[in-house]
Amino acid sequence: MSNYSLDLNIIFAALSDETRRAMIARLSRGAASVSELAAPHDMALPSIMNHLDRLEKAGLIETSKKGRVRFCRLSPKGIAPAQHWLAQQQQLWESRLDQFDDYIEQLAKDKSSET
Amino acid sequence: MSNYSLDLNIIFAALSDETRRAMIARLSRGAASVSELAAPHDMALPSIMNHLDRLEKAGLIETSKKGRVRFCRLSPKGIAPAQHWLAQQQQLWESRLDQFDDYIEQLAKDKSSET
Repeated sequence: MSNYSLDLNIIFAALSDETRRAMIARLSRGAASVSELAAPHDMALPSIMNHLDRLEKAGLIETSKKGRVRFCRLSPKGIAPAQHWLAQQQQLWESRLDQFDDYIEQLAKDKSSET
Repeated sequence: MSNYSLDLNIIFAALSDETRRAMIARLSRGAASVSELAAPHDMALPSIMNHLDRLEKAGLIETSKKGRVRFCRLSPKGIAPAQHWLAQQQQLWESRLDQFDDYIEQLAKDKSSET
């Protein structure tokens, strides 16, 4: 399996959890400390750290420590590979729907010129 | 948890597997029978059916039977909810990077007007 495929496996798996998506959405608005990220969730710190670890391993976030406080931010690469893959499929799918529309239109024209 | 969140959990989990992504990519190019979808994969039929079932439950594909042959195609709704979520985050993230650029530019201007 290519690195790109492995990356996508890990990124999509990381995004398949509501808490982790909420953390990404929060970080899209700016960097935050672990306590700030944990605040909206009724969850013990080890679970929070586990979610952040999954996001960091997927390359979606970066963390750094200042004194006793750990800060998180979205990684520059971030969700781009996942979005790129989805956009590619969506484009193919839409161009296929367009082709289908053209085909139906052509059928209708052929039908009307027959009469 | 909202239906939208549950849907996203299932969609992203469905996309976190290379075989299932290959099936989606194949179906982006047009409908296919189960055997056509199975052909590139060295996998027993029950595993193939299991993957297709995951994709169908996530609302990514639709299947229908003609005689003895089961056909699959991308569902019209398809990957749109996942792409919508990612695009939203990406936009927020990019606008934040822009704001940061503006901030740095402003700092540089302030600095040069000081001298």
